[in-house]
Order: sequence, then C-alpha cells, then structure tokens
Amino acid sequence: MKEEIVGRLRGLAREAGLQALIAMSPENFAYSMGVLIPSQLTVRSRHALGIIPVEGPDPTIIAVDIEEPVARERAWYGEIRTYNEFTQDPMNLLADCLAELGLGTGRVGIEVDYLPARARDALAARLPHASIEAADGFFLTARQRKTAGEIERIRIIGRLAAEVLEGALREARPGMTEADLGRRITGAYLGGGGDRLTMLVVGSGERSTLANAAPTRRVLQPGDLLRVDVIGTREYYYSDFCRTAVVGKASAEQERTWGLLFSARDRLIEDLRPGVGTGELYRSYAAFMAEHGLPVINFVGHGLGLTLHEEPYVGRYGSTILEEGMTLCIEPMCFLPGRGGYQVEDEILITGDGCEVLTAESWSRKLFEIS
Amino acid sequence: MKEEIVGRLRGLAREAGLQALIAMSPENFAYSMGVLIPSQLTVRSRHALGIIPVEGPDPTIIAVDIEEPVARERAWYGEIRTYNEFTQDPMNLLADCLAELGLGTGRVGIEVDYLPARARDALAARLPHASIEAADGFFLTARQRKTAGEIERIRIIGRLAAEVLEGALREARPGMTEADLGRRITGAYLGGGGDRLTMLVVGSGERSTLANAAPTRRVLQPGDLLRVDVIGTREYYYSDFCRTAVVGKASAEQERTWGLLFSARDRLIEDLRPGVGTGELYRSYAAFMAEHGLPVINFVGHGLGLTLHEEPYVGRYGSTILEEGMTLCIEPMCFLPGRGGYQVEDEILITGDGCEVLTAESWSRKLFEIS
Repeated sequence: MKEEIVGRLRGLAREAGLQALIAMSPENFAYSMGVLIPSQLTVRSRHALGIIPVEGPDPTIIAVDIEEPVARERAWYGEIRTYNEFTQDPMNLLADCLAELGLGTGRVGIEVDYLPARARDALAARLPHASIEAADGFFLTARQRKTAGEIERIRIIGRLAAEVLEGALREARPGMTEADLGRRITGAYLGGGGDRLTMLVVGSGERSTLANAAPTRRVLQPGDLLRVDVIGTREYYYSDFCRTAVVGKASAEQERTWGLLFSARDRLIEDLRPGVGTGELYRSYAAFMAEHGLPVINFVGHGLGLTLHEEPYVGRYGSTILEEGMTLCIEPMCFLPGRGGYQVEDEILITGDGCEVLTAESWSRKLFEIS
Repeated sequence: MKEEIVGRLRGLAREAGLQALIAMSPENFAYSMGVLIPSQLTVRSRHALGIIPVEGPDPTIIAVDIEEPVARERAWYGEIRTYNEFTQDPMNLLADCLAELGLGTGRVGIEVDYLPARARDALAARLPHASIEAADGFFLTARQRKTAGEIERIRIIGRLAAEVLEGALREARPGMTEADLGRRITGAYLGGGGDRLTMLVVGSGERSTLANAAPTRRVLQPGDLLRVDVIGTREYYYSDFCRTAVVGKASAEQERTWGLLFSARDRLIEDLRPGVGTGELYRSYAAFMAEHGLPVINFVGHGLGLTLHEEPYVGRYGSTILEEGMTLCIEPMCFLPGRGGYQVEDEILITGDGCEVLTAESWSRKLFEIS
C-alpha cells in the first residue's frame, strides 16, 4: 500500500514540476504516512505534516511531541521530527526541514485548502525563495482509485454498517426514541470493530427531511418515516450506508415512492462501469426522477474513502470518467416537506467490467416496516 | 446567552477598531451563532460563516444550502444566506455580504488560524480595498469566561462523564478488552445524553503511556494500569474527565505514585481562585512533582468549553490571571516507560472566591482496583 501510494503522489508531483509535496490534512497525512495523529482532530493547532520529496529520501514526518509514541508505533516512516506546541511553530520546523532537504528554493506543493492563512504567511516568511503552490488536487486525484488495501478496509466497515443498521431496524419498535435506536447502532458498530461514529443520522417524522439529523428524544410514532445513515470510520476509512423505514404499515404512497427510489438506485448501479462519465449518470437519474414527479438535489453520489465526500461526485456539475478501483456511494434521496424524507444509499466498488455492491446486496427491496 | 456573547465580541472588535468580525471555525461559529452546522465537521469545504457587524444590524449567517433547515431550526439569527457547494464559492458570498453591509472597504477581522490560504486569496481578490485582519484572539478571549448558559452545559456533560467512568470501572473485570470497556462507556455516555465521544482513551498496560490511546482488543491483565479519559460533547460543549485504575491489587509503588499525583491535584485545586496566575500554579506543581521524583510535561491544565484545549493553559509557558467564570481541566499525569501511565483529571469552575469541582467530588481518592 505504502509504495503504491507514495509512488502515485510522486508521479503526479513530478509531472507538475514540483520538488516536494506536503500532506497536512488528517486525511492526506493518514493516506501518505500510514498513521493519523489522534489529537489533530480535537486540537486543531497540533499540525501534522508529511514531507514527500519527489526524488531522493523517504518522507519526513513532523508531529507534536506528545503524539510521538503513536507516530513511532504506526507510521510508515521513521524520520519523525517533533515540536513543542507552546514554544515552537510547526511551520518553522517545516521550513527548516525543507531547507535541509535542499528544497528551500524549490517548488513545493502544499494543501492550500487546509493550510491556514497565518501558517502560510509564516512559511513564506521563513522560505522567501521557495515557491509554495497548491497541491490539493494531486491528493484528490491519487485517492480516487483505491489500492487493494484501501478497498479491503472500506469493504469491512461498509459491511459492518449494513449489518448494524439491519439489526437495529429489526429491534426497533414504536415508542422507542431516536436516541434509543442511536445507542443500539453505536454499540453494535463499536462492538463489531468500528472506531467511531462520526455522524450518525437518525431522523424520524418531519426530522427525516433534515439532511444530517442527529438522534434526539423524539419518540417513533405510527406512520413516521425513519431515515438512518451510518457514517463512521474504522482504521481511518469511512462507512456511509443509509436506509429508510416506516413505523407501522407503509401507505400505498410510501410504498410507491420507495419503489421508485429503489428503481433509481438499481438503474444507476446497472450503469456503473469503467469508462462511463458521472455527469451522464446523473442526468439519466435526474430524468427518471422528474418523469415520476420526484425532486432531485445537486448530486446522487460521491467518492468515499478517507473522507466522507470526495471525488468523483455523481452530480449536476462536472463529470468524471469512472475507473476500476474507485469506491462510491450511490444515494438517491427525496425529501418531501410534510411527507418525510426517503433515502437509499449503498457503497459501490468499480470493478474491471462493472461494479460490486459492497454493502447489503441481501437487503430486502421493500420499505422496511417497524412493528 | 446570545446578547452576552455577541456583545462581548462586538466590544473587543470595537476596541481594536474593526468594523466586523467573521466566525468560521466550528467552535466560534457555534459560539456566536447558536448552532453548529453538522456536516462542517465531516465535509470541510462546507464552510459556515457568521458575519458580526460591530455596529448596526444583527449577524448574517452563510451556510451550505443542504444544511439550511438545521440553521433555520436552531440559529439565533434569521438572516441566513446559502450557497450551492458545487457552483458557488462561499468566500464570494461573504465578500458580497460584506459589501452590502457597507464593509467592503473596512477593517474586517477573520480567523486566520482556520481560514484556508486559498480562501483568503479568493476573499482578498474580491474585496481588494478591505483590510482582512486576524481576529482569532478576540474569540479566544471572549470564550475564556463562560456565560451562565455555557457553565450549565459544561456542568451537565462533565458530571455525566464522571458517572459513566465510575460505572464502567465498577463493571470492569480482568479478561475484558479495552474495547469491551470502551463500548460500555460509549453506551452509557450516549444513553445519558451525550452527543458523541470525540476521543475516548482506554489505554491498558504499556498503552497507558500513550497520550491518546483509542481502545483496542488488548485484554486487561493483572498488574496492568488502565488509564481512561472520557472526551466527548453534548450540545457542542466538551467533557474531559480522566482516572487511572489498576487491575488486581495495587502494588506499594503504584499506591505511592497515585497518592502523590492526587496530592498534586488537591494542591492545585486549593490554589485556584480569581487573581492567581496560571504560570505560578504550574511552577508550584512542577516543584512538587520534582521533589517527589516524578516527571512533568509542559502543562497541567487547560481551558475547556467548545474546544477540548483552549485558553487559559496552566503550563510552563505564559501565564493567565484566573477570573470568575473560567472553566478548566486540571490533569496531573505522569507516564513512566515500562511502568505505566497515571493521570487524574477534573473539570473546575472558577467562582467568585475560589473554585468548584464540576466532576466527581465524591470519587474515592484511592487508586481504583479492578477485581
């Protein structure tokens, strides 16, 4: 995994004429260094930096001193420099490392969509003769096609998310709260090997139309729609699996809407294969939904990996040609004010000649009824 | 809460000669607008911006269109502008709003430790005659003294963290894994009203010396030290409560080390009151630890609120005079390679004439023994 990832990044940077790439967002640092520094997520100023020289030595890691043991335990590279978070600016350490590597006057790519403005000023002041350029796109490009190791991780956590949600819906009863259901899901997700639920959506009744509704004390009532989206991570990789249920017997209208949404899903999955453009897929989806009087939002799919939403998007704007090894979520949804929110979401791997549903091929196609 | 917070921010900005403040980190947006946009945490490009004109109208909110219902449901202000994440740059919308407010040529403060470098470039290009300045410090200053509403939230989640940890240690048995314990803690924390465990530390044996050890499948064995830190949030505010236990009977050395650490904690708490400098507190703590042959790290306390670590720090570098309404964690710890990591951490409110322990005054002072 390590050689493949760093080789890919070096290739993209070399082609653009850069001498080094610097990873600093949690996802790109984890992607290229093999470890995520835990408190980077909770104490934002604890910057973690991975310097990848395009030619020459192995990458160098810069991390806060208190996290050095974790970096030593798991990182792919042994060259680890640490800083004191109270007395040292990691940007100064970065500048010094670059200078030592002979890159002080070179073209260096960094994540300008993550690097804070003040940190860039500090870096530029310390390295006045370097050209500090945007490198976000190289990471996004490299991360689109997953390595075998990445696919394995996504598969494991995706399957777990699907099993956990199925189990939770089977145990759900009218009179339970969204929070009751949330706790069962959380327990089973962590019990099954998940590391954390970063955003669990449990929205019932009118709350099913909120995009990202965290579970509340609202009680499940007959006739409610219930939308549950299991968003979490294991070994840094995301799951994102969603189903909708109804409390009690589904009405004819609910069954019809769900049936249409599921058909839209099936049609999309049938068309997923290398060489197809995502813009084309979206337009065909939007036409199907319009034909049946259902509203659409700006996208119906997104890449999934170290982040929840990443390239390639399947949406109204732009188009990406699908390639083998991409992992996507396909998520037809429609939120009908006053009537409730419906969503079906699966995780898909693009294979050599089609695709494979990583989540829940065995799930029922019917709208799940909670009784 | 709302008037007090925005009044405080306006006062600080006015004094510095700014015409507007812009909040954009999740914590400062939630602090000043009353709502956190959920997917800002998982999809970083979904910037949420709160514009606070120093004089004149109420604040304006800028959020991604898909999260508009959440913003409408909970935000303190009704002026909400939304953007399409695929076709619009929120920085352009920000520039347009500032221009409409007559601030296009003014001095505007923004969070340059959060604002990405590329976003600042976009803003500066669109507002060439505005002066875009650092405002991070105003938010940090305002957030140090908590309002009554904030203290109530911190108290509720802090007490819960302490109860949950006590319950989990009572149920812990040799042979369980760190992950078993982690699941019990998570279930009880969410069951008791917590929203999420952002970073749960369960480190046993040698892993007790890792600063931020997530629970693993490691089995608890007689003689192990076990360090558990319950870091999570409810209604956006953090808990951070830690205790250490031993599996089986504590050795004389373990009892002695724990006793010293607990005494260090008590001495610190005795000295916490308005008017005292945190630098002085740290030096007295460090001297006590050195006297007994125990190592210290660079800090023994930190502010707690919308972020896990914030001003004021109780540490080796700098000093802050304590004021009524500050909330701090006091966390003596010592990590002894080969022997294990010890830590005791409580949440404290600075009152008019001293302080109040928000967590666990009833906890035993003895090293907890798991049997």
